[in-house]
Amino acid sequence: MLLTDLPTPALIVDGSTLDRNLAIMAAALPGSRCRPHVKAHKTTALARRQAAVGHLGFTAATPREILGLASAGLGHDLLLANETIDAHRLRAMAECDGRVTIAVDSVETIDAAAAHGIREVLIDVNVGLPRCGCAPADAGALADRARTTGLGVRGVMGYEGHVYLHDDRAARATATATAMEVLLGAHVTVGGDIVSAGATGTYDLNDAATEIQAGSYALMDTTFAPMIPAFTPALWIESTVISVSPGYAVADCGLKALGMDHGNPTIDDASTLFVSDEHVTFRPDHAVRVGDHIRVWPAHVDPTVAYHERMHVVDGENVLEIWDVDLRGW
Amino acid sequence: MLLTDLPTPALIVDGSTLDRNLAIMAAALPGSRCRPHVKAHKTTALARRQAAVGHLGFTAATPREILGLASAGLGHDLLLANETIDAHRLRAMAECDGRVTIAVDSVETIDAAAAHGIREVLIDVNVGLPRCGCAPADAGALADRARTTGLGVRGVMGYEGHVYLHDDRAARATATATAMEVLLGAHVTVGGDIVSAGATGTYDLNDAATEIQAGSYALMDTTFAPMIPAFTPALWIESTVISVSPGYAVADCGLKALGMDHGNPTIDDASTLFVSDEHVTFRPDHAVRVGDHIRVWPAHVDPTVAYHERMHVVDGENVLEIWDVDLRGW
Repeated sequence: MLLTDLPTPALIVDGSTLDRNLAIMAAALPGSRCRPHVKAHKTTALARRQAAVGHLGFTAATPREILGLASAGLGHDLLLANETIDAHRLRAMAECDGRVTIAVDSVETIDAAAAHGIREVLIDVNVGLPRCGCAPADAGALADRARTTGLGVRGVMGYEGHVYLHDDRAARATATATAMEVLLGAHVTVGGDIVSAGATGTYDLNDAATEIQAGSYALMDTTFAPMIPAFTPALWIESTVISVSPGYAVADCGLKALGMDHGNPTIDDASTLFVSDEHVTFRPDHAVRVGDHIRVWPAHVDPTVAYHERMHVVDGENVLEIWDVDLRGW
Repeated sequence: MLLTDLPTPALIVDGSTLDRNLAIMAAALPGSRCRPHVKAHKTTALARRQAAVGHLGFTAATPREILGLASAGLGHDLLLANETIDAHRLRAMAECDGRVTIAVDSVETIDAAAAHGIREVLIDVNVGLPRCGCAPADAGALADRARTTGLGVRGVMGYEGHVYLHDDRAARATATATAMEVLLGAHVTVGGDIVSAGATGTYDLNDAATEIQAGSYALMDTTFAPMIPAFTPALWIESTVISVSPGYAVADCGLKALGMDHGNPTIDDASTLFVSDEHVTFRPDHAVRVGDHIRVWPAHVDPTVAYHERMHVVDGENVLEIWDVDLRGW
């Protein structure tokens, strides 16, 4: 099948760019040093490629991602890097075909995990981003509580996402070091083997964590690419021009095909003007005609992928594989 | 089932608010005067309620919406208010169990429609929004071309979405009148019975169109509600607090549950701070605890609904019905 034969809008992955991104990460952080975050792609077929380069443990943001990975035979070592007290979902994760560790940051999340059969946890510590994570000073007591309820405590996690506020790499390095000082301090009081942190944006800045939860590096997007030039955007939306007017044109890639929290997408050889439910209006650099295809590069890969049922892996104009985006939902 | 028993994040519709919105529109624009746009809800069960108050014709933005409505027995009079040259989809729409009319704005879209079995079209005219739509002066010639290829030309359509740029209602009224003057001018050259235009935002301003393509009125959102106070937001995301820290808390409703092109959602009794992939961080007005439920009101309903597999219709704390969001995708 040819790329140009696909109905549009279609999520496209350049296979060789993806493989190069995966190889670069595997070389920089081999084996258990990287725990790929599947929230960025929600696709077990892509996770299989990450496992093939040596990354056998995975990070997830939702129970459904955990359960899907386990069902696909990728349950070697799964981390839900997020809090939940949902009894049914905790029980399902406890009973799935995999080793499941979940993040906890409160008495409530610890007690729910223990009550519903979860066996292992990480203590989630606030290292500067105002989101989940306990106060660092509370980490030891929460670990004690977890052990008292029968849970195994494998260590700590902390996400230094606030360092992205710094455009400058040196400033990000300093902020990462400060955050990891907090996390290592908490780790002393918690114990266990794991210090899990990070992100694609700090994969080569964070040498304190025993493992990096990197997600975006595989497919990348236009927001992260300038910040982390080691990795190359591999994902776009193939789109068809459906209307042409003097000075602008319209293609069939809209708000229901694109995560928009990081702003407008980028279009090859064109300026993006605005995005509607099922349209992008753009100013092409060269004349386009109805039926032409354009490539629309999302500003944020994660919420873009979550809109699509499948992604198409291509080599040039050839569609090599079609992958179900099978880890969507919760 | 109780609302509080649903796994979260969950898309919730207040049934009586929805019914009130539908009744207000049916009173203002009865029968064929309103052609509800299903892109806003993508749910045949909701379209059935719109049909029950007398709106038997529907507007769609994608072929899948058209095909889903037809399969559900709602094919009385379906308008694809969008351009496509996709041969397979045109053929599927031509062969579906319904009367299908599609928008065309170029020789290419006319010829594709005719070649693949479509029987009826509207000439889509640019009335001021730079998106699809031919130049008004070209409308007559395109109608002639369509008739020459054997297509029935039912009239014109034009979307005055640019009038939303005006905060002031009087200015919107003036801009709508100007846009409709253009559309009526084109209609003279095109012929046919239909002048299709508008939107929820101009439903009571546009008296030139024979039918209004209103979508948002059924469920509404925080962006449109202040502009069109006749209709009340009926849709929110039920979400669970998963982490509480001094000064803020976190709930499980993130970028993959919310269309973000109109900005952050609104939370009852709280200030929204920021949204991550699977989290919203917020400042509650009153203390909250892990396990509490919150209501997250999206800023844009259409791309929010498109993330969800189902919506839950409630009366107070009781879940009355669960509807599949069955018109997603393309």
